[in-house]
Amino acid sequence: MSAAPIRANPIGYRPSVELIPKIIEGAWPEIARMISRAEAGYEEAIPALSELYKRAGKAHVIGITGVPGAGKSALVSGLIKSFSAPGCRVAVIAVDPSSPFSGGSILGDRLRMSDSAHANRAFVRSMATRGHLGGLASTTLQAVDILDAAGFSPIIVETVGVGQDEVEIVTAAHTVVVLSAPGLGDDIQAIKAGVMEIADIHVVSKADKPEAAATVAAIKGMLVLGSDVNKSFWTTPVLTTSSKTGEGLAGLTSAINEHWSHLKASGEFEIRERHICRKRVLATMDFLVRRRFDEGAQEMAQTFERVVSRELDPVSAAVALLDLNNEH
Amino acid sequence: MSAAPIRANPIGYRPSVELIPKIIEGAWPEIARMISRAEAGYEEAIPALSELYKRAGKAHVIGITGVPGAGKSALVSGLIKSFSAPGCRVAVIAVDPSSPFSGGSILGDRLRMSDSAHANRAFVRSMATRGHLGGLASTTLQAVDILDAAGFSPIIVETVGVGQDEVEIVTAAHTVVVLSAPGLGDDIQAIKAGVMEIADIHVVSKADKPEAAATVAAIKGMLVLGSDVNKSFWTTPVLTTSSKTGEGLAGLTSAINEHWSHLKASGEFEIRERHICRKRVLATMDFLVRRRFDEGAQEMAQTFERVVSRELDPVSAAVALLDLNNEH
Repeated sequence: MSAAPIRANPIGYRPSVELIPKIIEGAWPEIARMISRAEAGYEEAIPALSELYKRAGKAHVIGITGVPGAGKSALVSGLIKSFSAPGCRVAVIAVDPSSPFSGGSILGDRLRMSDSAHANRAFVRSMATRGHLGGLASTTLQAVDILDAAGFSPIIVETVGVGQDEVEIVTAAHTVVVLSAPGLGDDIQAIKAGVMEIADIHVVSKADKPEAAATVAAIKGMLVLGSDVNKSFWTTPVLTTSSKTGEGLAGLTSAINEHWSHLKASGEFEIRERHICRKRVLATMDFLVRRRFDEGAQEMAQTFERVVSRELDPVSAAVALLDLNNEH
Repeated sequence: MSAAPIRANPIGYRPSVELIPKIIEGAWPEIARMISRAEAGYEEAIPALSELYKRAGKAHVIGITGVPGAGKSALVSGLIKSFSAPGCRVAVIAVDPSSPFSGGSILGDRLRMSDSAHANRAFVRSMATRGHLGGLASTTLQAVDILDAAGFSPIIVETVGVGQDEVEIVTAAHTVVVLSAPGLGDDIQAIKAGVMEIADIHVVSKADKPEAAATVAAIKGMLVLGSDVNKSFWTTPVLTTSSKTGEGLAGLTSAINEHWSHLKASGEFEIRERHICRKRVLATMDFLVRRRFDEGAQEMAQTFERVVSRELDPVSAAVALLDLNNEH
């Protein structure tokens, strides 16, 4: 989570709240602009984001994660086609872990996905920058709010399953799909990061490869070992897909829809929503407290010196520093 | 650190600030009363403690720690006699870890120490209760402030070297004496708690026992292994004492005085004072923040529910909760 300050918006910009009516209608340019402003961390965007949050809450959010090379982009392209029923407007947020130095994307195969996206009128957005208010996870969830308020569903959030921020993003989805490529050795990284356990659906890509069966068996073995009590009687399926042959996509699409029905019927949906809200609020509080302390570092050092010189006692100093930090 | 609320003072009590003149004069009843009020965590005592803190800062605070049975009380009795030069008013605070259930003391040999204390007009106080504002360490340091403002020096703080709170107390002393009984096996507990490394002076008690030499060698071996770079050229001595024969007490007394001179001459004194102040302020801030959150738990749950129902967005909720917590 980045503790960068919230930025002021550039002069001459159209206020974010004025974009809301167009966003609600589903107008792409305004949606894209609003996501950019959330990404940039403009202070001015906060009331608009607040309003859009209140209008969201209808979309099915699907998280797709897996190590680089597992075939996430090909899978997402396939899903866009599968969800192309009339009235179904799909959106995709692809989270690229940004380098702390360049801010650039480390993924390469955006183009292929955009092609299929365009053909099906899916909104595809890559988020490559680091988050501001409340970190990367918070910014991504704000983009989900915007797309949700704009009427998109499902909203697919695609992440590389490495790093705590990304695990956080994906656990904020209603349905988590974890993608593994044949040869489970490659996936040790994913297991380490705690990604395997959060799957509602497992998918083994490249089903045309002979090693795929062994990977399916390994994941099933892992599921037997782990107790699945938290999933309220949902049996995590282990599916296979092949982007070469197109095999398995229909099965995955129905598994995703079944999981959505299960969430709604079992009461698990409310539990997840409550959990996600709690995490979002607490993450934002953490961020705000840290920012206040960062900004107050000099005042804090000065206060410590006054305690050292016995001008001020430790309790009064603590009270003063807490009040001071709250004024920001 | 306890997060118990600060208590209101009982009706009819003499205000704590009115005790200050008598405390400054060194009057025992007022000193004892003030320590009791700090221990009880009376809100009313805070301004008086603040004032006394400002008047303190002259005393040499000596921390003495060691596992139960190492002979701490006998050593402290001996030190009271050693520091009985004219004009030298010694105070002792013996910190007894209290049971979370009974609040009672687990140490037994207070009587023997009080006898010698009385003979030499040393102020001896046992602190057996858990701390309130800022925890046990904070309450003990407030007692040190009171005795310091009253003109006592040295102030000996005796603790059983187990538990994080006690390590904190003893590291707030200017000179830390770690006492070990012959047979280093018994002291594994002390080593584990990180107590051995904080010694400015090591003492092996019961020097009359044949195993004492081996314990001295073991401690010296440990000191060679550990790099002593943080102590600014102070070579930690390993001394021996015997409460049976009285041997070694004079040597320990001069080592303690030498360490005090070293602190003053090397600039290490200011570094320690700054470090102690910082820790006291931060511990109190931690305590105050935790108390606010504890008190605000219900409001927080209600706010989360409003986010779940999309009445309120996560950022506004976070801001509201932080402001709410600050009002307490």
